[in-house]
Amino acid sequence: MGAAKSSCQGFLHYAFDYETPKTLVVPSIAAGVVFRFTQLLILLYLVGYVCIVQKAYQDTDSVVSTVTTKVKGYAVIKGSANTSSPQFRDVADYVIPPQGDKSFFVVTNMIVTTNQKVSHCPEVRYFQVSYCLLHVVYCVAMVSSWPGVRTGRCVNYSDTVQTCQVLSWCPLEEDTGPNKEALIDAAENFTLLIKNSVTYPKFNFHRRNIMPHINSSYLKTCVFNSSTDPHCPIFRLKQIVSDAGEEFQVMAVEGGVLGILIDWTCDLDLWASQCLPKYSFRRLDDNNKSHVLAPGYNFRFAKYYKSPEGTESRTLIKAYGIRFEVIVFGTAGKFSMLPTLVNLGSTLTFLSLVSELIITLTQLGELANPNPNPITRTAS
Amino acid sequence: MGAAKSSCQGFLHYAFDYETPKTLVVPSIAAGVVFRFTQLLILLYLVGYVCIVQKAYQDTDSVVSTVTTKVKGYAVIKGSANTSSPQFRDVADYVIPPQGDKSFFVVTNMIVTTNQKVSHCPEVRYFQVSYCLLHVVYCVAMVSSWPGVRTGRCVNYSDTVQTCQVLSWCPLEEDTGPNKEALIDAAENFTLLIKNSVTYPKFNFHRRNIMPHINSSYLKTCVFNSSTDPHCPIFRLKQIVSDAGEEFQVMAVEGGVLGILIDWTCDLDLWASQCLPKYSFRRLDDNNKSHVLAPGYNFRFAKYYKSPEGTESRTLIKAYGIRFEVIVFGTAGKFSMLPTLVNLGSTLTFLSLVSELIITLTQLGELANPNPNPITRTAS
Amino acid sequence: MGAAKSSCQGFLHYAFDYETPKTLVVPSIAAGVVFRFTQLLILLYLVGYVCIVQKAYQDTDSVVSTVTTKVKGYAVIKGSANTSSPQFRDVADYVIPPQGDKSFFVVTNMIVTTNQKVSHCPEVRYFQVSYCLLHVVYCVAMVSSWPGVRTGRCVNYSDTVQTCQVLSWCPLEEDTGPNKEALIDAAENFTLLIKNSVTYPKFNFHRRNIMPHINSSYLKTCVFNSSTDPHCPIFRLKQIVSDAGEEFQVMAVEGGVLGILIDWTCDLDLWASQCLPKYSFRRLDDNNKSHVLAPGYNFRFAKYYKSPEGTESRTLIKAYGIRFEVIVFGTAGKFSMLPTLVNLGSTLTFLSLVSELIITLTQLGELANPNPNPITRTAS
Repeated sequence: MGAAKSSCQGFLHYAFDYETPKTLVVPSIAAGVVFRFTQLLILLYLVGYVCIVQKAYQDTDSVVSTVTTKVKGYAVIKGSANTSSPQFRDVADYVIPPQGDKSFFVVTNMIVTTNQKVSHCPEVRYFQVSYCLLHVVYCVAMVSSWPGVRTGRCVNYSDTVQTCQVLSWCPLEEDTGPNKEALIDAAENFTLLIKNSVTYPKFNFHRRNIMPHINSSYLKTCVFNSSTDPHCPIFRLKQIVSDAGEEFQVMAVEGGVLGILIDWTCDLDLWASQCLPKYSFRRLDDNNKSHVLAPGYNFRFAKYYKSPEGTESRTLIKAYGIRFEVIVFGTAGKFSMLPTLVNLGSTLTFLSLVSELIITLTQLGELANPNPNPITRTAS
Repeated sequence: MGAAKSSCQGFLHYAFDYETPKTLVVPSIAAGVVFRFTQLLILLYLVGYVCIVQKAYQDTDSVVSTVTTKVKGYAVIKGSANTSSPQFRDVADYVIPPQGDKSFFVVTNMIVTTNQKVSHCPEVRYFQVSYCLLHVVYCVAMVSSWPGVRTGRCVNYSDTVQTCQVLSWCPLEEDTGPNKEALIDAAENFTLLIKNSVTYPKFNFHRRNIMPHINSSYLKTCVFNSSTDPHCPIFRLKQIVSDAGEEFQVMAVEGGVLGILIDWTCDLDLWASQCLPKYSFRRLDDNNKSHVLAPGYNFRFAKYYKSPEGTESRTLIKAYGIRFEVIVFGTAGKFSMLPTLVNLGSTLTFLSLVSELIITLTQLGELANPNPNPITRTAS
Repeated sequence: MGAAKSSCQGFLHYAFDYETPKTLVVPSIAAGVVFRFTQLLILLYLVGYVCIVQKAYQDTDSVVSTVTTKVKGYAVIKGSANTSSPQFRDVADYVIPPQGDKSFFVVTNMIVTTNQKVSHCPEVRYFQVSYCLLHVVYCVAMVSSWPGVRTGRCVNYSDTVQTCQVLSWCPLEEDTGPNKEALIDAAENFTLLIKNSVTYPKFNFHRRNIMPHINSSYLKTCVFNSSTDPHCPIFRLKQIVSDAGEEFQVMAVEGGVLGILIDWTCDLDLWASQCLPKYSFRRLDDNNKSHVLAPGYNFRFAKYYKSPEGTESRTLIKAYGIRFEVIVFGTAGKFSMLPTLVNLGSTLTFLSLVSELIITLTQLGELANPNPNPITRTAS
């Protein structure tokens, strides 16, 4: 019975005794000052860097976004204004694709080849040499010449020059590079409306770039300006290009890719109304012409026609222009228990190791003259 | 030699002595109960919140996804069914772009202007005032009027009204807003097939929304319903819109943007077959008409024709409709060593600080009556 | 005054006394070896796993990217080469959409239905049964038959077969599946140029897949090969498909979706020049034909024509082909203070708990023979 009582007591002791480490209190002012100073530094680091700069008490989420765009404006093609047949182009003609995607292309320059039909014609040569006259074999060998499939015949390209005959859409495009001045130079005055809706799914937070508190009549007339009108969703194309550090009329000649970046980085612990889009602009293609492959931006597309007899013809357009890409990115943060505990806990751990190291070094300096009467006490 | 032996012993002591803090065992039931209770709380927090709710033992990755879509259905344009020339439209006519992207537009209403040619014509006026008769100057000044470039002449728009002449695609579009009832109202019965393939590159995990275990004959006839058929990849457009809390025929008049959200949030530590897509639907544009800029969703596109004589004409279509956006998001988690150690370690640290604080407060209450005989022992 | 002095001393003690736990030094070689060995393991884990494998000292960011593409090549449609009207197709004809998006479709096979007009025609039947002759009611009931709206009349489809009359684009497409051999088989030799520009916004790091240090004349002639030319941005379509483990001519018949994955996972603490794209290829649609819904990839689009009298007709093309999707992903890491402290601190905490557990177990083995003279000292 004594043994039973004893083992029961042992269990109670095991279960409910509270242990606390014995500590020595070192009444040294030097060590104490270093100790408190280190604690102060740790506190400053925690408040300043961990909490304020890194916001380590927040859980984060990445933005999910939708963008629709609408371009407005029209242009008379350069040089055609005073002719008998001025060429007028509007939004349905020069924005590709037309449906208002987040990535769209505005035609600023072009090479048009009208009335092409699938047939046989001589290759285009930019130098006046009849290279195939004595080398008909040459026409057969290189079947993969750019414009089409060689038939093996050598035919008259002009009165003096003969070239290989090809099967292709004829007449072939005469591509001597884009016009030195952009044909649709008025494109710089086109306006662009961007509607952007974002969601942070983890926080069930939705927001649009056209804010409800913004005056409706302001929205109808404003034009974006990074300093005076930073929340107007209507942009002038020339302004976008110049904010990206480029000149519109230069870029319009060979084309390029221009990024419209919308940054939705938000601190959702603040007032939700502080979560506003920040627009910036950057040229995305390489305009270092010395080494670049296929500089600028262009592509070919065709319009198809049918004659009353049923033969198909097409107008081939090599379109140069600026491709605008609306790129939405951002991270939202909101207070959450777990990252707070994780970040504070582990930062404290690491820093307490550092502080102990400092104190140990201080103590080493005092070892020559050890304190004679340390006080023992329990503390936690 | 004695000194050498002594320094060697010193090194051995330094290298292999094991230090353990001396602790006081406080045989106080009150302190012990609080101590164990705090430990229990910490354990519950770790298991419940950190492990089960936050899954802090997992490494995470964001989804990489591809979507292809296919719309089926046809419609007879409203009001044309019983006329001599009924207008029939199928998938190739009303889905833009046609190639099955994750974002596509279904035309539901339109304003068609046929046989436009680049020429001169009077501006369209919706009120019966000949504003330019006495103010020819006015026609020249505002060269950037919407429809085209003003020539400076004042011409007859109707028998009684005169307006400025413009160079444009003529005749001009008479845009008095969309039809009050959607012209392609049958669009609500069109079906949409979504094929979605996702990857979590960090875990080399691939999955499709059409699961291999789903019966093939079921797939051919099913229609998505969030409660009865939540994994059928075929959607009825009307159902999508109504699940987003909107009415199809109302939305079809002015158009809008509708998000089809696919949530692939997965716990890859569970059976992989539990990783299933969750579909939800949300209207993405602002339908608060009181303050919105350009409500609804519309854009203009053209079909180009050529007469036998070579003059180009176009049919301009201002298309109103619903743009569907398939938005795929999600995060997958899988057990990983590092986050487990980081999260458990730091949570333990932080909570042990908290528990010590509680215990210290308990001890303060006992200070008046300190335990007379604490037991000293070494423990870790 | 003595009390004041005493309380002042108390405060000073509280503020500047430094406490350090008393420890027992256990001069046991066994415990000491285990203790140091455990410390070594922790060190190895920290250096090897946490620092080198997981790079836990880094902050991370997700890639933001833009892609433009350009396809080159032409083809003569199979079987038409030696006829009187060979059919030639180039880039403007077979790449949809034409504007060089990151997702584009190359037509490899097709069913063409020319000269469709909205009118009445008999339904197409692939079996020779006049199903409607005795069941005119049947034609009315199923108004939602695929090709169009049934009029209720039963008309001659051929000399011997009668089918329901429909209102649709007539003549109807006779869809008996794609050609068994791809019509544009030459598509395998088309080349694809990919221009990809990436940004890690958090680190203000920009990079292109066409690196400045790569020789410009090399770029003009190279073709991507995963082992010999891994950084050439020009791809042969056949090579892409075969690197994905598929055969081009097989895939070309019914079409499919092919992912071109560009991995920009980068360690920005290393030389920036080491941050290079890694290309890989994977088929994204399900080619397990036994259970799949709508295998392959195809869509319908139309070209619209107008006769001189103004009636509209269209050529409907059901295009089969390969949709290429350029998918850019990646995470960049760079040294940052906070994750270093968090990860090291908490890993140390967790592992020191583990090490204490091991040591306690070791001590239990020594309890039978307790060390008679432990040395008490203060240490941190």
